[in-house]
Amino acid sequence: MSIEKRLRELGIELPVYANDTYYGATKYGSMKPFHIIGNVLHLSGHVPERDGNVVHPGRLGETVTLQQGIEAARITGINAMAGMKQALGDLDRVVGIVKSLNFVACAPDFHEVHKVSSGMTDMLAEVFGREIGIGCRATIGIQALALDNCFETWMEVEFR
Amino acid sequence: MSIEKRLRELGIELPVYANDTYYGATKYGSMKPFHIIGNVLHLSGHVPERDGNVVHPGRLGETVTLQQGIEAARITGINAMAGMKQALGDLDRVVGIVKSLNFVACAPDFHEVHKVSSGMTDMLAEVFGREIGIGCRATIGIQALALDNCFETWMEVEFR
Amino acid sequence: MSIEKRLRELGIELPVYANDTYYGATKYGSMKPFHIIGNVLHLSGHVPERDGNVVHPGRLGETVTLQQGIEAARITGINAMAGMKQALGDLDRVVGIVKSLNFVACAPDFHEVHKVSSGMTDMLAEVFGREIGIGCRATIGIQALALDNCFETWMEVEFR
Repeated sequence: MSIEKRLRELGIELPVYANDTYYGATKYGSMKPFHIIGNVLHLSGHVPERDGNVVHPGRLGETVTLQQGIEAARITGINAMAGMKQALGDLDRVVGIVKSLNFVACAPDFHEVHKVSSGMTDMLAEVFGREIGIGCRATIGIQALALDNCFETWMEVEFR
Repeated sequence: MSIEKRLRELGIELPVYANDTYYGATKYGSMKPFHIIGNVLHLSGHVPERDGNVVHPGRLGETVTLQQGIEAARITGINAMAGMKQALGDLDRVVGIVKSLNFVACAPDFHEVHKVSSGMTDMLAEVFGREIGIGCRATIGIQALALDNCFETWMEVEFR
Repeated sequence: MSIEKRLRELGIELPVYANDTYYGATKYGSMKPFHIIGNVLHLSGHVPERDGNVVHPGRLGETVTLQQGIEAARITGINAMAGMKQALGDLDRVVGIVKSLNFVACAPDFHEVHKVSSGMTDMLAEVFGREIGIGCRATIGIQALALDNCFETWMEVEFR
């Protein structure tokens, strides 16, 4: 239970997805939360929701500040960890973040999308340690996300 | 041949990709239709073309209505099934939609991208049943697609 | 060493990523260059940087011409090959480009994103031959990329 201990040290509390199918299943359309092939966990898109509310809706470079975007990305990463726990039962089974493809809703001239994503990926490195927690990554600035979310991640995780 | 029977029941007719390389191979640039690794089928992007014409070109929230977007997504899913059939020979070999990453060309303030994608994913659930047909999913609203298509899907499928 | 010979014939010189961690590791945020699972190499996003400078910054259909976009995509593919070499040691180990998801920063009415990507995928076909070098593909026109890059690729490669 070392990851759970680490989460407590960092003051991070995971939402519990275990008792419902998936927060997105009805609200965000027909999908399942995860799919496992061999030792790879594929997660559906995660967004910066908290208690059912969208955190910092809008677009970076317009109504959402860089600091708010970074916070939204951090919350998204926490939700993604809750998705890993729902799928794997125990976060200590995670042996590597394979990769995350990250989407930042933004203005046409916003060129700091990578700084937003680091709000998530820096946090994952803190929780899992750099060897396990840092994955491959790409981040793209896009037009809009469902329900005006400003950030979304699309992640693959390797586990034992 | 249960999936073929199901398609007939639902009145869905698949385009035939078996006798040409790929509808996108010359028109949409240098690519192949699919790549198989182990029991996972990776498909190239599929768009809502029918008989070589782009169905409902434009952007959601501008010239394309939500209902038209949903129809475009449904047609895209039918084309993706044709791609699965081209690759696997028989759709009964499909044991799960791993995931689809979906792109909706849209206006900056269009926040219903998830409803568009459900035009595809609801149909796949009807054809394959929920256990097999519902995959992981993310949907992003983007700027533009090739030839003004309003929707595209990027899918992985598990098969036996 | 047939691919290295082919690169020399084509006058293509790869940047060397072997002696640093990754050009993106600090500049573009917390990420690693690649992750290997079995015989599949996952690469982080690659962009058209050369000697640390962004080549043809801006958006297609605005400040970047189609020809410049095609050149940016070609340079991106060269950088991705450098990433493969960093990961695998020898490009002759590549047995197939599984797929690339490609991002083109562009204006709302730019519908030739597929032509941009072919600047990369045509080059990969020239280097590796069509059987190995042509992968699955999708290309989307997006709002903005980190540091105003006009192109990015997100690639998976099969190797022996």
